[in-house]
Amino acid sequence: MPEFAAVDVIRAKRDGGVLSDAQIDWVVDAYTRGVVADEQMSALAMAILLRGMTGPEIARWTAAMIASGERLDLGSVRRPTVDKHSTGGVGDKITLPLTPLVAACGAAVPQLSGRGLGHTGGTLDKLESVPGWRAALSNREFLDQLADVGAVICAAGDELAPADRKLYALRDVTGTVEAIPLIASSIMSKKIAEGTGALVLDVKVGSGAFMKSVEDARELARTMVELGGAHGVRTIALLTDMSTPLGLTVGNAVEVAESVDVLAGGGPADVVELTLALAREMLAAAGLPDADPAAALADGRAMDSWRAMLRAQGGDPDAKLATAAETELVRADRDGYVERIDAYRIGVAAWRLGAGRARKEDPVSAAAGVVLHRRPGDPVRAGDVLYELRADDAARIPAAAADAAAAVVVAAAPATPAPLILERIG
Amino acid sequence: MPEFAAVDVIRAKRDGGVLSDAQIDWVVDAYTRGVVADEQMSALAMAILLRGMTGPEIARWTAAMIASGERLDLGSVRRPTVDKHSTGGVGDKITLPLTPLVAACGAAVPQLSGRGLGHTGGTLDKLESVPGWRAALSNREFLDQLADVGAVICAAGDELAPADRKLYALRDVTGTVEAIPLIASSIMSKKIAEGTGALVLDVKVGSGAFMKSVEDARELARTMVELGGAHGVRTIALLTDMSTPLGLTVGNAVEVAESVDVLAGGGPADVVELTLALAREMLAAAGLPDADPAAALADGRAMDSWRAMLRAQGGDPDAKLATAAETELVRADRDGYVERIDAYRIGVAAWRLGAGRARKEDPVSAAAGVVLHRRPGDPVRAGDVLYELRADDAARIPAAAADAAAAVVVAAAPATPAPLILERIG
Repeated sequence: MPEFAAVDVIRAKRDGGVLSDAQIDWVVDAYTRGVVADEQMSALAMAILLRGMTGPEIARWTAAMIASGERLDLGSVRRPTVDKHSTGGVGDKITLPLTPLVAACGAAVPQLSGRGLGHTGGTLDKLESVPGWRAALSNREFLDQLADVGAVICAAGDELAPADRKLYALRDVTGTVEAIPLIASSIMSKKIAEGTGALVLDVKVGSGAFMKSVEDARELARTMVELGGAHGVRTIALLTDMSTPLGLTVGNAVEVAESVDVLAGGGPADVVELTLALAREMLAAAGLPDADPAAALADGRAMDSWRAMLRAQGGDPDAKLATAAETELVRADRDGYVERIDAYRIGVAAWRLGAGRARKEDPVSAAAGVVLHRRPGDPVRAGDVLYELRADDAARIPAAAADAAAAVVVAAAPATPAPLILERIG
Repeated sequence: MPEFAAVDVIRAKRDGGVLSDAQIDWVVDAYTRGVVADEQMSALAMAILLRGMTGPEIARWTAAMIASGERLDLGSVRRPTVDKHSTGGVGDKITLPLTPLVAACGAAVPQLSGRGLGHTGGTLDKLESVPGWRAALSNREFLDQLADVGAVICAAGDELAPADRKLYALRDVTGTVEAIPLIASSIMSKKIAEGTGALVLDVKVGSGAFMKSVEDARELARTMVELGGAHGVRTIALLTDMSTPLGLTVGNAVEVAESVDVLAGGGPADVVELTLALAREMLAAAGLPDADPAAALADGRAMDSWRAMLRAQGGDPDAKLATAAETELVRADRDGYVERIDAYRIGVAAWRLGAGRARKEDPVSAAAGVVLHRRPGDPVRAGDVLYELRADDAARIPAAAADAAAAVVVAAAPATPAPLILERIG
């Protein structure tokens, strides 16, 4: 591999140039090996954020991140493989019902996941509220469960795109998270390295999402769809609304409970709608367009798959989930209709209650969170419960209460509900 | 001092915002203390480079860098103090004759200097080719010499703007040197902290300078003139040409020898012109507008001041300077006129001969360099010596010869000489 001077690569991007394939290969590899220093990569990341990257640059950057580690071979699984990734939102528990649902319809879902620094824990944290469940699997266990159950949600190993692992931690502390080329290559390098044959992306838009505008979300979605295609992974994206929390629960155990409701054939309409829409896209992408996920929810096959998935990783699907020591009920002070519930502010409230972490090494509370009793559009009478705040410690409630109160707006007349699924790209 | 999160300060600048005084004070102080990490400061520096800074932001940033260390008090000197700073060019030895000349005319010149990574050594490296001369003085020695001789050229101490020292080293490896707000605050924080009452800036423009365009040079000059004024330092700037090397010598000992020629009343016309122009500006800024620097050159007072300055720091003004083991004479292959001599390429040739350093810790050769025998506009006959290449080691000559050959253009007809002093700002 040719050698470069880091400062020349930084300057080229800083001045608006296009990095060569050799420069990208070198800088990603040299950063992973510690030859390019953190302070050099952060300057380059800021230059990328402000100057952008061409499609071919992003593709090469992604390939270099994949090449920094191993790429899994799911050839032994003998079912079509398809995964889903969400860019993250408030109350976004969709992976929990979706993974066993799609497995119940005949595909295999290799969901390698993270924990994250969001308003609540990540998917792994949520599942850890199920007693006994463990996130860490060996490659052998992962492949066996994928073949037998068809559904795995587990922690990504250290060998998967280590360049991304190192770069993500750096971006987090240097104000360089919000670069679309770096977001797209980070997500796609991990998903491509995981070996899935197809991928459906749920790109969130709105106050509770990373992308606040449809334009940015669309650009990110298009970039990722192209990256997937370039690496032989059939990829499509849905742009979905994240101005309102998904469902009625925001937290960890409360989101598991709501997911179980969906798998039992119930659950909030928006969670069911999005779960089925994503399931249909995943099954079509996996070459199973005739599968009927609604039937699999209704007849209990999805629930069976959920229980098998939890048990395979030591979890007890019948165990009681953690409950909060402290609960505060908040009631409406007037008659009317819920006009809106702001996702970002509800997310902050859940975080203040203990559902999320401030630093990577912090634990999350299984029981803390927000439980909504009304959704936007619902009528309400003065004195009705609007939502509950739950925490392990009463001292966490007052600050969270202020955020939640600002989030929920009750108006005299009903508002027209906004659509949940905004666009399909692929 | 209020606390901030580094990532919020980075994001504010990244998104094109204006940093508050409190943010600037905090981030400069926290970086100096190691609380803000190198990778955070380099991301911020890149954001500053690409987004710019307002005048008040630059002023506050400069003040924060000054406040990171001590500010010298030259009140005991009992002469008006005035210093000069050049942004650096090829063959720019002007500080050497200028400092004793201005002292001979009644002002005191507190020239705290560095070494740098230029095509030749910095001013300190050049003076170290004088046997016995030492660059390091205590504050006491510095103040005494300034009062007695009026001329001091010595190394800046560690206590002068330590934030700048740390930031400059970081910018050097992260592609963030070329940010006008950071260049201006770096230069001015050191000059203001040094305690001078007035300052004349020689801002170079052209191939051999940091600033390639008059527009950039003008912006840098204006920024620095404003910064000086805001801190009570009378500051003016000259924009001067650096497309051609200054004088006939580019190196270390050879530049000292040429400076002595100027102090003896001779020397190349361009070096004399710029030395006198800067001396007049410095003396006027110091409140001595009637001083006559041309007379001080002609009557030997400037030479007396030079000898006293060297002796005060252990140097022997009568010692023989180092001579090079290897010399190659390059001759004209046709009759004509020297059309141009490119400063940048001659600088690279001098660097290849050993006159400059590649890394901070490298030594420089006292004797290496380029000696021109003709200047642009001079007539030349085939076979005349155009220039000499000097090195300690013959192996260094071939690569340098190629750069020098590309630098010197002989044409059939004489070209109109370009002006040396382009603009005055202040």
